[in-house]
Amino acid sequence: MGQRLTHLDEAGHARMVDVSEKSATTREAVAQADLHMLPETLTAIREMTLRKGDVLAVARVAAIQATKRTSELIPLCHPLALRAVEANFIEIDEKTLRILVTVKTTGVTGVEMEALVGATVGALTVYDMCKAIDRGMVIREACLLKKIGGKSGPYEREQEMSR
Amino acid sequence: MGQRLTHLDEAGHARMVDVSEKSATTREAVAQADLHMLPETLTAIREMTLRKGDVLAVARVAAIQATKRTSELIPLCHPLALRAVEANFIEIDEKTLRILVTVKTTGVTGVEMEALVGATVGALTVYDMCKAIDRGMVIREACLLKKIGGKSGPYEREQEMSR
Amino acid sequence: MGQRLTHLDEAGHARMVDVSEKSATTREAVAQADLHMLPETLTAIREMTLRKGDVLAVARVAAIQATKRTSELIPLCHPLALRAVEANFIEIDEKTLRILVTVKTTGVTGVEMEALVGATVGALTVYDMCKAIDRGMVIREACLLKKIGGKSGPYEREQEMSR
Amino acid sequence: MGQRLTHLDEAGHARMVDVSEKSATTREAVAQADLHMLPETLTAIREMTLRKGDVLAVARVAAIQATKRTSELIPLCHPLALRAVEANFIEIDEKTLRILVTVKTTGVTGVEMEALVGATVGALTVYDMCKAIDRGMVIREACLLKKIGGKSGPYEREQEMSR
Amino acid sequence: MGQRLTHLDEAGHARMVDVSEKSATTREAVAQADLHMLPETLTAIREMTLRKGDVLAVARVAAIQATKRTSELIPLCHPLALRAVEANFIEIDEKTLRILVTVKTTGVTGVEMEALVGATVGALTVYDMCKAIDRGMVIREACLLKKIGGKSGPYEREQEMSR
Amino acid sequence: MGQRLTHLDEAGHARMVDVSEKSATTREAVAQADLHMLPETLTAIREMTLRKGDVLAVARVAAIQATKRTSELIPLCHPLALRAVEANFIEIDEKTLRILVTVKTTGVTGVEMEALVGATVGALTVYDMCKAIDRGMVIREACLLKKIGGKSGPYEREQEMSR
Repeated sequence: MGQRLTHLDEAGHARMVDVSEKSATTREAVAQADLHMLPETLTAIREMTLRKGDVLAVARVAAIQATKRTSELIPLCHPLALRAVEANFIEIDEKTLRILVTVKTTGVTGVEMEALVGATVGALTVYDMCKAIDRGMVIREACLLKKIGGKSGPYEREQEMSR
Repeated sequence: MGQRLTHLDEAGHARMVDVSEKSATTREAVAQADLHMLPETLTAIREMTLRKGDVLAVARVAAIQATKRTSELIPLCHPLALRAVEANFIEIDEKTLRILVTVKTTGVTGVEMEALVGATVGALTVYDMCKAIDRGMVIREACLLKKIGGKSGPYEREQEMSR
Repeated sequence: MGQRLTHLDEAGHARMVDVSEKSATTREAVAQADLHMLPETLTAIREMTLRKGDVLAVARVAAIQATKRTSELIPLCHPLALRAVEANFIEIDEKTLRILVTVKTTGVTGVEMEALVGATVGALTVYDMCKAIDRGMVIREACLLKKIGGKSGPYEREQEMSR
Repeated sequence: MGQRLTHLDEAGHARMVDVSEKSATTREAVAQADLHMLPETLTAIREMTLRKGDVLAVARVAAIQATKRTSELIPLCHPLALRAVEANFIEIDEKTLRILVTVKTTGVTGVEMEALVGATVGALTVYDMCKAIDRGMVIREACLLKKIGGKSGPYEREQEMSR
Repeated sequence: MGQRLTHLDEAGHARMVDVSEKSATTREAVAQADLHMLPETLTAIREMTLRKGDVLAVARVAAIQATKRTSELIPLCHPLALRAVEANFIEIDEKTLRILVTVKTTGVTGVEMEALVGATVGALTVYDMCKAIDRGMVIREACLLKKIGGKSGPYEREQEMSR
Repeated sequence: MGQRLTHLDEAGHARMVDVSEKSATTREAVAQADLHMLPETLTAIREMTLRKGDVLAVARVAAIQATKRTSELIPLCHPLALRAVEANFIEIDEKTLRILVTVKTTGVTGVEMEALVGATVGALTVYDMCKAIDRGMVIREACLLKKIGGKSGPYEREQEMSR
């Protein structure tokens, strides 16, 4: 098997890969996480939204703040100065809330991990705030949707891909 | 709708719920996250495992460390002094790696969020270390499996539940 | 001068005071910070509030999260597991927004610093979000309003005290 | 009202504003916070200063360290690599201690928040170390004094401004 | 070989050991780190000390703050609410500065790692502040001197032990 | 004495030195820390290594993560975006384990402190995982081995230097 995991050296030891030769370019990544819940839980979140928006407002702040701490959470991730972060919520169906996190930077490494960390921490924050009424919520389909910039070129997740 | 989200006060504002009247009891929670990937990615992780174990060793450390930072990541979570944390990996099928995180404490609030944060950060760390060969990996079925202790009593997720 | 600053030892060196003999009791503290601004800035915050509440929602989350990091920010502060945190905003007059932060714990030291850190970080977050339209905002009267519990007994700041 | 709060998108949701088009320039900001106290408290600090300087030495370190954590505390603040930080103390009158924090960077966003966070955390650290002898200390006039660099141009707070 | 490393489970995987059955007792630990340097460097530190004390004042604060972050730095360390921390400096000879850190808590695990982290970070802070004039400084004899409390009983490092 | 400690201003106060005039260059530093232990402890670590490698795997991750937090631990250190980090272990003799940490960046300040923090935290993590069987382990010879880049030019520690 010729695949190489770049975060490991030849002896298989963990390392933070050397990116000092890479040049800084504009990078962007979009990630999602879907949170499945009882329809009445989504109703409760939505009605809060209409009234005060606090569940989603708190989750949005949590998602944005988490993106900035990615290199502390993911051990072999390079620290990056993020230039833009947005977190948005979409109701996919009566029991699915999707969080979409978009991150941009100008740097030598991509921001895929930052977007993924933001999306999952945002979803977990919704879970935390609603767990008293729906402990069975599940995160599904947390994945990278798109990335732009970097040597490996753009990536776009095909819709309805079946794996 | 009579459901109440305890993390919001009557006006719908976020707050860290008052738990000063609750008594400290033994608490335990188990959470999982499944990471779907190409079969060759799982093979690469497994062969590394046989050789040096580093992908899973790094992800295990990341999961454990993340549990300890839960109250920094999840805004309305109470800080807790964890007493035990374990992270384990299981190959569910040829393209699915499951991470299971078990957390224990003696305290006034539960450790569900700690277990969930550990499981998702562990899965994201595997993603980070393998994304160079498989950018399309997806986290699925990240959820609470079990909790013990606390006023709301034990919780166990039913197998094969269909929602 | 017979006054002793307990955070300094006899030689005047900083130390984290020994509280191992103190017994854990219920503690509470309330602190405030007033943010003075242009009337149109307060209008902008208020109208946002009516629409979505985001300036105050973000500042509220920032205040709550900051209380949990007090012992990292204030070098000689003891770490504490907080049991309850609330942050509320009041319009004092057409150009003054007050943030009130209430913190509770059961522990061997008080939570005055946690309440003060929460109030000032909340006020600074409002500043950050509005500085594009009003760079001249000023924090005034950031102080402890009340504390309960602990050997030194309750404290209540007199109204309209002139110093 | 035509004013726009840039940290909110059109729908009023919080976001970390996109600064990826801005060019890196030299930035500087100076902020202050005044701490009002009993004259004997200021005497105690001053005499410590003459002897060992520890209250102000600790507060100075706390202020410098806090500036580096600004983007963790203020949710929508961009992370920045600071190039210089200084914290100084001035006795304004017999009961007022002023802390002045100067921050410099070369980057795409300003360092106003860093200077303000440093000044307020420095003042709160003095409060923490002296609260055993003077619980009624108050932070007043915590504000931006000056900023240089950035598209919006220089800013200087007028003396004796009356708002 | 019958020795068991408790931080590893039977399969050799890292874990945060279960201490939920241990009872909270008073714990204390003292650690040291010696920093060897050029005699003129120690003179410079000492003269600063006489004048303002800042190198040692900063290192003392750094040591105290580091003890509070031990469980973030040492992956399998349990978080602990420290009750007392002191850091002191002794000149051992004309080229050796010793830092001694004492930590106390009431808890289920010991504070050896907290004391060791404090001593080494304190020594590294002195290094940082003096490296412009003496890049060849070396940390030697960083070790635990004493511990009290806990099931394994008291420990005292013998003087002049030869290993 | 004409030596100047740059982290102190003329009055001897701590500051984070102004590096805004320095130009970004490629920087590299290598640091070591030696951990002395009982021969049977080193055997236990080595046999674990043969089997699963976890003590060293955990210590390697801890070392890498610690380098990224250097500016939080060392108060006057400038934050830096690291480009590469590696941690390796060598058995020097039957009772000495050496950890070597190499750090690279492109920036305006060097990475000596990052390498030193990584080496000492890595050594302390080994201590933590083995202290149940060998509480007397000692860190010796923690020092900078080499640095490249920066105005002060390259530095290489001479072998067998006697100080």
